[in-house]
Amino acid sequence: MVNIALLGFGVVGSGTAEVLTENKKIIEERLGREYNLKYILDLREFPDSPFGDRVVHDFNTILNDPEVSIVAEMMGGSHPAYDFTKACLMAGKNVVTSNKEVVSTFGVELCEIAKQNGVRYLFEASVGGGIPIIRPLINDLSSNKINKISGILNGTTNYILTSMRDKGESFEDALKKAQQLGYAEANPSADVDGIDAARKTVILAALASGKLIDPKSIHVEGITKITLQDTKFAEQFGYTIKLIGYTELTADSLIAFVSPRMVPATNPLCRIDDVFNGVLVDANMVGEVMFYGPGAGKLPTASAVVADIIDIIAAMDTTHKSIEWKQAEPCDLADFESYKCRRMFIVKENEDIAAKLNGEIKALDGACACVTSDVITEREAAEMANSLGDALISVYRVL
Amino acid sequence: MVNIALLGFGVVGSGTAEVLTENKKIIEERLGREYNLKYILDLREFPDSPFGDRVVHDFNTILNDPEVSIVAEMMGGSHPAYDFTKACLMAGKNVVTSNKEVVSTFGVELCEIAKQNGVRYLFEASVGGGIPIIRPLINDLSSNKINKISGILNGTTNYILTSMRDKGESFEDALKKAQQLGYAEANPSADVDGIDAARKTVILAALASGKLIDPKSIHVEGITKITLQDTKFAEQFGYTIKLIGYTELTADSLIAFVSPRMVPATNPLCRIDDVFNGVLVDANMVGEVMFYGPGAGKLPTASAVVADIIDIIAAMDTTHKSIEWKQAEPCDLADFESYKCRRMFIVKENEDIAAKLNGEIKALDGACACVTSDVITEREAAEMANSLGDALISVYRVL
Repeated sequence: MVNIALLGFGVVGSGTAEVLTENKKIIEERLGREYNLKYILDLREFPDSPFGDRVVHDFNTILNDPEVSIVAEMMGGSHPAYDFTKACLMAGKNVVTSNKEVVSTFGVELCEIAKQNGVRYLFEASVGGGIPIIRPLINDLSSNKINKISGILNGTTNYILTSMRDKGESFEDALKKAQQLGYAEANPSADVDGIDAARKTVILAALASGKLIDPKSIHVEGITKITLQDTKFAEQFGYTIKLIGYTELTADSLIAFVSPRMVPATNPLCRIDDVFNGVLVDANMVGEVMFYGPGAGKLPTASAVVADIIDIIAAMDTTHKSIEWKQAEPCDLADFESYKCRRMFIVKENEDIAAKLNGEIKALDGACACVTSDVITEREAAEMANSLGDALISVYRVL
Repeated sequence: MVNIALLGFGVVGSGTAEVLTENKKIIEERLGREYNLKYILDLREFPDSPFGDRVVHDFNTILNDPEVSIVAEMMGGSHPAYDFTKACLMAGKNVVTSNKEVVSTFGVELCEIAKQNGVRYLFEASVGGGIPIIRPLINDLSSNKINKISGILNGTTNYILTSMRDKGESFEDALKKAQQLGYAEANPSADVDGIDAARKTVILAALASGKLIDPKSIHVEGITKITLQDTKFAEQFGYTIKLIGYTELTADSLIAFVSPRMVPATNPLCRIDDVFNGVLVDANMVGEVMFYGPGAGKLPTASAVVADIIDIIAAMDTTHKSIEWKQAEPCDLADFESYKCRRMFIVKENEDIAAKLNGEIKALDGACACVTSDVITEREAAEMANSLGDALISVYRVL
């Protein structure tokens, strides 16, 4: 009998209890082993929940119970989630988590502690919610060198951008609806400012490169400045605007950033709408593969948490290779200013644009936009933007 | 040092040699172990190949070499591929394969022999080429009950259907081009008649249900009867025609079949074009997730073969859970005649249709089509088709 404890009984925590209960029979059959959900740590009481009798308020009850071998941390935030995770790993308990903040910030240390203690720290649910992406990157694309990963990694912002494009709603109106539907928090900053996507991007970059970048150190733009005019210009050129977490591995360095991008209709990410997520991986042998599905939500995220729990139970009596990451040093990172891609410039007037920018031009409602034919660096794009002066409305990277 | 032998040095075999060589450094780093490509079995000589010196013509050289612990079978066809696989497994060698014919026909027996001999039989490359789908179904969706799987599983037919839709080419012209481009064989029957898709469908159904159905026993329609008129009607209604391998698990039975389907624009399979494949999985906790990528081709398929090799090497000193399938009995299968979905009827004249069929009607070039509002069974659809008599041009299942 394997005993499991959950830390946190919020959306993902209660979903995890539900998956473990609802699918208990088929999971135990697959494993050939039984499990028991022994404790749920939460500050609150849940007298009406069928799991109410397992709720405890003192973390030490879990930490000090030698019967508990797997702990699922779904508290969110860095503290005490990080501290509890560390304590569990040091006590020889396996930990699985959906907490991208902890993984992206403390992943190197926690993986190392897990290794030293002969246990595992797994985090499939931290990127892409229910979409299998972390284990496939490790196991299925193991025969490949990863070149690039581009992902729609945040469901809230994708819902807002889809509403702006399809319903002509402004950013503010679309955000309000997302909040009403429960897709966005009262304070939506982590989503709309790209912070959540940045955490997921560095986790993907670490899986591809072995080096974890501090998510606070990468270039991050959110979606708050995107206007309806921008989405219309996107459509004119056959693009759609998506918030893209991007990482690229060159021969000797690593790039990672989050920003809105103009995604061409030929790119499979273009059609991933609403709260769905998609992760497009470009690898040297397989080419492009994409993983698509619900990037958030109670049961999808819980599905990934429980997949990690099953993975641990299935391999409990065997050795297994630990995830080994290093903290990325400044010298590991490419100079962001030299990142090259095509750009779309949107300006107030079109007279001088054709002369200054080499590319396709389209006009719309008194403004005009140009998509450059050539890839240009961040530095060149900034210079170009400067030279356009007051005429510049916005500029986008093309994916 | 792990010694590997390849059976077959055709497209996938030579690709596998290339992946093992090209990415040797990063793969060995990931594994912490070295490997050696010791033999390649083929009837031909390859004096100009860098692997020419490893070519052998006698299977027994490989079978009787105790140093060889992993054999990759990429010969195609049932015999001698099945016989060689069986002999290798019985001799305690792990086998990986891209051969869907062998897996779909002899999978139950070969998995059982592997288990008895303490070795593994893996076949990630047998479905979806380079797309990770088999291992994700086993490992990542392990917390779910699989409800349905719908897949675009054959790149050749998807290329033809895309050409018909986008370029207005007839089936015959599109097939000719596919042959010129090397996407289709001189004898295209296995692709265009749906046989290849049927093999992959029963493998997916077995992964979902644990029961392997004889691919020859399922309902299989190919794409040879699809006309340009059909593709135009599809467009009129906002659908696109795709060859879909489909499986569905109900409480007590299993359905599996292959046929062209009208795929609505809201279904993510709708936008998977050209030679790409996509597998959409509907599972009880995660909801819908999709896996997309190159479903065939030298390096993509080899990427999956080598992922299996890596999986075996990584777990060589540990125990591992074997795949255990049973052969599906007639009583396991649902009555196909009771399969329910919406239908599109295309008929010569439209006068009587509205009265006979309850649904949306559109006319085009002297013909007309109706998509039923209700789901109807195969039996009901056949009766309806009968009652339309000579007026019926074609009928499609809607996905």
